[in-house]
Amino acid sequence: MRVLVIHGPNLNLLGTREPEIYGTTTLKEINERLTRRARELGIELETFQSNHEGEIVDKIAEARSSADAIVINPAAYTHTSVAIRDALAAVALPTVEVHLSNVHARESFRHELLIAPVVTGQIIGFGADSYTLALEAVSVLGKRA
Amino acid sequence: MRVLVIHGPNLNLLGTREPEIYGTTTLKEINERLTRRARELGIELETFQSNHEGEIVDKIAEARSSADAIVINPAAYTHTSVAIRDALAAVALPTVEVHLSNVHARESFRHELLIAPVVTGQIIGFGADSYTLALEAVSVLGKRA
Amino acid sequence: MRVLVIHGPNLNLLGTREPEIYGTTTLKEINERLTRRARELGIELETFQSNHEGEIVDKIAEARSSADAIVINPAAYTHTSVAIRDALAAVALPTVEVHLSNVHARESFRHELLIAPVVTGQIIGFGADSYTLALEAVSVLGKRA
Amino acid sequence: MRVLVIHGPNLNLLGTREPEIYGTTTLKEINERLTRRARELGIELETFQSNHEGEIVDKIAEARSSADAIVINPAAYTHTSVAIRDALAAVALPTVEVHLSNVHARESFRHELLIAPVVTGQIIGFGADSYTLALEAVSVLGKRA
Amino acid sequence: MRVLVIHGPNLNLLGTREPEIYGTTTLKEINERLTRRARELGIELETFQSNHEGEIVDKIAEARSSADAIVINPAAYTHTSVAIRDALAAVALPTVEVHLSNVHARESFRHELLIAPVVTGQIIGFGADSYTLALEAVSVLGKRA
Amino acid sequence: MRVLVIHGPNLNLLGTREPEIYGTTTLKEINERLTRRARELGIELETFQSNHEGEIVDKIAEARSSADAIVINPAAYTHTSVAIRDALAAVALPTVEVHLSNVHARESFRHELLIAPVVTGQIIGFGADSYTLALEAVSVLGKRA
Amino acid sequence: MRVLVIHGPNLNLLGTREPEIYGTTTLKEINERLTRRARELGIELETFQSNHEGEIVDKIAEARSSADAIVINPAAYTHTSVAIRDALAAVALPTVEVHLSNVHARESFRHELLIAPVVTGQIIGFGADSYTLALEAVSVLGKRA
Amino acid sequence: MRVLVIHGPNLNLLGTREPEIYGTTTLKEINERLTRRARELGIELETFQSNHEGEIVDKIAEARSSADAIVINPAAYTHTSVAIRDALAAVALPTVEVHLSNVHARESFRHELLIAPVVTGQIIGFGADSYTLALEAVSVLGKRA
Amino acid sequence: MRVLVIHGPNLNLLGTREPEIYGTTTLKEINERLTRRARELGIELETFQSNHEGEIVDKIAEARSSADAIVINPAAYTHTSVAIRDALAAVALPTVEVHLSNVHARESFRHELLIAPVVTGQIIGFGADSYTLALEAVSVLGKRA
Amino acid sequence: MRVLVIHGPNLNLLGTREPEIYGTTTLKEINERLTRRARELGIELETFQSNHEGEIVDKIAEARSSADAIVINPAAYTHTSVAIRDALAAVALPTVEVHLSNVHARESFRHELLIAPVVTGQIIGFGADSYTLALEAVSVLGKRA
Amino acid sequence: MRVLVIHGPNLNLLGTREPEIYGTTTLKEINERLTRRARELGIELETFQSNHEGEIVDKIAEARSSADAIVINPAAYTHTSVAIRDALAAVALPTVEVHLSNVHARESFRHELLIAPVVTGQIIGFGADSYTLALEAVSVLGKRA
Amino acid sequence: MRVLVIHGPNLNLLGTREPEIYGTTTLKEINERLTRRARELGIELETFQSNHEGEIVDKIAEARSSADAIVINPAAYTHTSVAIRDALAAVALPTVEVHLSNVHARESFRHELLIAPVVTGQIIGFGADSYTLALEAVSVLGKRA
Repeated sequence: MRVLVIHGPNLNLLGTREPEIYGTTTLKEINERLTRRARELGIELETFQSNHEGEIVDKIAEARSSADAIVINPAAYTHTSVAIRDALAAVALPTVEVHLSNVHARESFRHELLIAPVVTGQIIGFGADSYTLALEAVSVLGKRA
Repeated sequence: MRVLVIHGPNLNLLGTREPEIYGTTTLKEINERLTRRARELGIELETFQSNHEGEIVDKIAEARSSADAIVINPAAYTHTSVAIRDALAAVALPTVEVHLSNVHARESFRHELLIAPVVTGQIIGFGADSYTLALEAVSVLGKRA
Repeated sequence: MRVLVIHGPNLNLLGTREPEIYGTTTLKEINERLTRRARELGIELETFQSNHEGEIVDKIAEARSSADAIVINPAAYTHTSVAIRDALAAVALPTVEVHLSNVHARESFRHELLIAPVVTGQIIGFGADSYTLALEAVSVLGKRA
Repeated sequence: MRVLVIHGPNLNLLGTREPEIYGTTTLKEINERLTRRARELGIELETFQSNHEGEIVDKIAEARSSADAIVINPAAYTHTSVAIRDALAAVALPTVEVHLSNVHARESFRHELLIAPVVTGQIIGFGADSYTLALEAVSVLGKRA
Repeated sequence: MRVLVIHGPNLNLLGTREPEIYGTTTLKEINERLTRRARELGIELETFQSNHEGEIVDKIAEARSSADAIVINPAAYTHTSVAIRDALAAVALPTVEVHLSNVHARESFRHELLIAPVVTGQIIGFGADSYTLALEAVSVLGKRA
Repeated sequence: MRVLVIHGPNLNLLGTREPEIYGTTTLKEINERLTRRARELGIELETFQSNHEGEIVDKIAEARSSADAIVINPAAYTHTSVAIRDALAAVALPTVEVHLSNVHARESFRHELLIAPVVTGQIIGFGADSYTLALEAVSVLGKRA
Repeated sequence: MRVLVIHGPNLNLLGTREPEIYGTTTLKEINERLTRRARELGIELETFQSNHEGEIVDKIAEARSSADAIVINPAAYTHTSVAIRDALAAVALPTVEVHLSNVHARESFRHELLIAPVVTGQIIGFGADSYTLALEAVSVLGKRA
Repeated sequence: MRVLVIHGPNLNLLGTREPEIYGTTTLKEINERLTRRARELGIELETFQSNHEGEIVDKIAEARSSADAIVINPAAYTHTSVAIRDALAAVALPTVEVHLSNVHARESFRHELLIAPVVTGQIIGFGADSYTLALEAVSVLGKRA
Repeated sequence: MRVLVIHGPNLNLLGTREPEIYGTTTLKEINERLTRRARELGIELETFQSNHEGEIVDKIAEARSSADAIVINPAAYTHTSVAIRDALAAVALPTVEVHLSNVHARESFRHELLIAPVVTGQIIGFGADSYTLALEAVSVLGKRA
Repeated sequence: MRVLVIHGPNLNLLGTREPEIYGTTTLKEINERLTRRARELGIELETFQSNHEGEIVDKIAEARSSADAIVINPAAYTHTSVAIRDALAAVALPTVEVHLSNVHARESFRHELLIAPVVTGQIIGFGADSYTLALEAVSVLGKRA
Repeated sequence: MRVLVIHGPNLNLLGTREPEIYGTTTLKEINERLTRRARELGIELETFQSNHEGEIVDKIAEARSSADAIVINPAAYTHTSVAIRDALAAVALPTVEVHLSNVHARESFRHELLIAPVVTGQIIGFGADSYTLALEAVSVLGKRA
Repeated sequence: MRVLVIHGPNLNLLGTREPEIYGTTTLKEINERLTRRARELGIELETFQSNHEGEIVDKIAEARSSADAIVINPAAYTHTSVAIRDALAAVALPTVEVHLSNVHARESFRHELLIAPVVTGQIIGFGADSYTLALEAVSVLGKRA
């Protein structure tokens, strides 16, 4: 099973950016932890970070031939990107949406979730552990299929 | 670690109720599966189902002395109960909100999540597996504390 | 044919409560009139009144095995209960929603009808006669099936 | 007792128009069935169909001298006609609003009911039987007066 | 100076329709009074009543060659007719909008005035005198031009 | 008959202020014209201008003993003053609201008319002639009473 | 004079629940203080707490024969219960609504007050003293009647 | 292939009505041009103009037996007519909606397109050429079928 | 303890203004009653009435050195004045907002309470007794501080 | 005449992506068909596809010197891009907006058309033929200029 | 060049009022600093503070003959005063709107800027330095003219 | 002090793009003027323009180590980019938002300012001088820190 993990805009700043909201773990550490857990679950992992909406759309299109499932933290694009929504609907892979913080407890414009209706499920609010739980979820989805 | 799992209204009908949305697993099977997994994780589990908003509020109040964390699927009360929200805020335990189906892909009145701002995190859309993932999440939260 | 008639909150006060809106017939009189008419139509009737949202949800769940159709006046829960809506959708019986007064001619918060999309039809505004007409309607639905 | 039955726009197409929503009974059949039932109830019946808002307003104005009650299915004008609403309020006859399909379970613009606040009651969602039930309702209203 | 006075839907019922709102003067009396006052002001008057939106639109189109100004009480079409608005904008004659009752003190759907932005001015709330005042206003507009 | 004419904020600038909207007549000229016309109609006239909401409220309160009717152009306070609305409702005199320009054809925040529901009628859009027409209207109201 | 005091959901947790919002006084202490003050005012007091909307509706219905006035802190049901509103309107006793904290200074969903339109008056924001003031208010209402 | 072209309200005024918005071509010229182009495309053309919503609904109903496709410029009824929408949905013919001007660049009430969801496609903003392009489009739809 | 009582616009008309809403007690009587009760409670009282928003803002600014608490009935400014809100927030004295009538049972524009979020508490709906209760409340707040 | 055709995000997936909505024609086939038709019409064609909002903005800026007209299918950016709107307004070339599917018959967030107010016209809902019709439209616009 | 600086309501309290939002500089200090800087820029300065909306409107009207530009901090009237907006539009002088704090980062009712559309520009969020920057801006505007 | 100036989408077209809104100064000229003024103020300046949201986010992330303050004209992204907002919040540098035109006097969708809540202050509406004033503001902020 091949899984593509996509990290959206500003997640390259993780660990230093507003740590009271996002925690002190860096993106590098998250990716290492995910790689280890993926190996245990027999999952082949690719990770990708971009601040560019267009690059994320490109990456999702490629995933049709290179991945069996997607884990995506759309970050700021969660609330504004119809293009990423359309890309996910187009490739139609099992997809888990991930958020580090509880977006529902933050500013009201973060309550609009444009991508949510086209994903399989969501894991929200467990910090860096949201990603690991998403990997478990993907693994479960794989077994079900 | 003691975990209270609360199943909201109509979940007693699981397995027979609109199976194209909610699947064919019954509540009894979900509880058995949760009990097995809890044992593996060293968690002491109590499960509870009620169609009564007031009984759920009562149960949450008791949890202050009888549980260390809550897993709750508020079902229909997700969208209408300020009382359950206030009860969860009052007991202030780590809480994971669970949904079987992807509420964001359903009717628009199901997009308003009244309880979400006061929980720790959410697991949405993985069918009966949402509960198991919530147990993993609670276990992680326990180790962090 | 077995029909369950559910009277929602505050209908136990009928006859004395705001008679300029709800009339002077008591709930007991309505139930007697319904029982007589049911006998004529060859319908086996059960009537039930509760002020508790949860008890109404419980009763609807039981109706799956004990009734062939439901007549319900959800009263105040018309405008606030997703739980009753979900219960009716789950049991999927022919259901007629009844209102004594013309809710569309009253306060604007009474114009939101949460349960209406999941019922078969509605009879609104004929006072106590709304119930009798609902029984006729249920009888017609029975013949059609 | 004289009753005027008004069929709004596009109801002349009944039986062929979107039968999955409106059924296969034609308007002619509905009118025949109504005439038979009216005779049993001792009601003198006039039926009228028009696609023109203005003609329906004219007809309602005439009803002041030619009818004792109105049964109206305003169809599309349900959601847009203040003129029909004002006409019904002006003649002030007992009026029953009828809909074949459950408008509350359809597109959201069909949930706005402009005429409802000025009618006596509503019968919604029982297909062609909605009309027969409306005739029963009118008969009851007549006895009450 | 030639003036066309247009009376919208249901105004044929004036004098009997809801007299507590619209007064007891009939449309015939209003037209007679207007004709007398027009003669004094040297105005050639034509009056027209219709319940049909389309007929009113037709009449306005004709007014391009047959009138120098329009006085219109759009009644119910005040709140729903873009067609009358477009017709008035197309003929571009001086136009006075008239209402018998104070629409701002009535139901909220009567507060939306679709036609108002394309008329010259409005006279609202003086009962049958609203028409006479509108004639004075038209006379003043005529002198100004 | 004694009539109080109230000119709201910025009307002291009339004649020079945005003449393409408000015309070139000054407030002094309007008051002189009103005084002449009042004399003809046997009306005793008092005119008053203020930029202060509080002074206008004071003046309306005094009018209870010093006037039989009010003509008011609330200008900017049309859209923001509940205090003037409450004052007019409190003194309960016949009141005509006047606007020089057609407020419905201007910015959307000028479409909200807070005072309109408590006045007798409105004259809108005839420039300085709006005031003279209002005086005619007041005279008519006086005869009716 | 007999007064029924109703405490809504989660108020059994008072004193320990979010003390920075609700203070450290327990419900038992409030009831004792109320009992003492009632005795001084010659009021016969009954207190009642429930987390169940239905039980509160039941209790209000009983109050018709057992109380002369109601003091109610609807807590979370303030914002969601049409059933309690209808019950209070049905029994039509003098009623004072009480809130410990200033709901207008909290989350925006707490600004919608569903029950307020059917009570006599409100006392909001004085902590446990809100109840004592409500008792004074009830006593005043009693003398007026 | 038989095509019915429907011109909505006020289009009889084309060429003289607000030429800065709608151009100087008359409806007669448009119909002649359409007839010529139809002949080249082997299309049998009928054109129809009405200011009456009801007549347009009647015409659409007739089209079931007399046409294979519809080209309609609903003009003002674009924004207010559910009846025309329902008629088009009922006859279920391939339909092209046409507008002369770019409605999206005009007043905001012209942005609500009630009929658009039930047509096959739209051609907007090319003046009189919008009709010719619609004929091309209909011709293409015909070949595809 | 020094308390400043501020009466907002139109309260000088109390006793004669719409007595079915506001009662027949005059402002002078209210002030006398307040003075007597203040003396009993050992409170030094100053009363102030103004129809001017600016004068009320001035008065609140002075209160910083001349009062220990404020009782304010903002009347119409309740719904429109950010300036009074800012003034109260700036002086930061304990403040009780008072209303004679139950604003929640009146027109919907009276449901927006701009000042409420910056006061300590509210007393609403007890007629002239609202003021006396507010004095009790202020006295309690004084003892607490 | 030189025409630039811009294909927005995810259109590179055409033919395989949700074929029930977008058809089975690939983007390559559309471009070939457009090239053939352009040659017939004497148009010099350039086609461009990008998933990047910024690249589309860059391309439009270049078009000022390299094209005489633009055909654009903004796809997902239709609903979210003010930048593309501003770019089109800045270059001020004749522009035709194209959509494959009828956006008005899809999800409600697809009904907001941000770019529409600054284009010349729109062709919507004819699948791949929308592009060919747009080319005809551009050709017509060219002849008019 | 003559510049009028207007300070709106509650700014007389500057330095003591909520210093965490508005800083500790007093209005007197700001005016002195502005006077010094004005002298350097060759500007003749007048400063004015009022809590009265009407006085500010009066002052703006006078400015037509006594000033060449206006700097205004409307404070609370920013969000509620159409009268000040109309006054500024009437005198049509170059005007700079100033705010001490970043209103966009505060309560949502402070995001509505009624006056902004009629000023030349805005300087927001630099504390007392906002005024000095506004003086620079005015000086630049003066040179441009 | 090092300052990064970011010019958003379409600003590369300045001087030619809609000069009636944006003026005739080119971006090159603005940058030269800024460089000269920066030198006078002892500021080290870097300027950057991009039409790509992602590139602007990248640049802001780099600014953490390469700049002490940011001046940004987000242009079209002002109204749509949560990603730029999050980036600015993450680097937490003093930031001045700049607009050439008065966005509040333009289309209503330009009134939503997504980035404003996370900047220090705003300078709006002074054309190319907005940038110079922003540099002054940044210089002041630097001295304060």
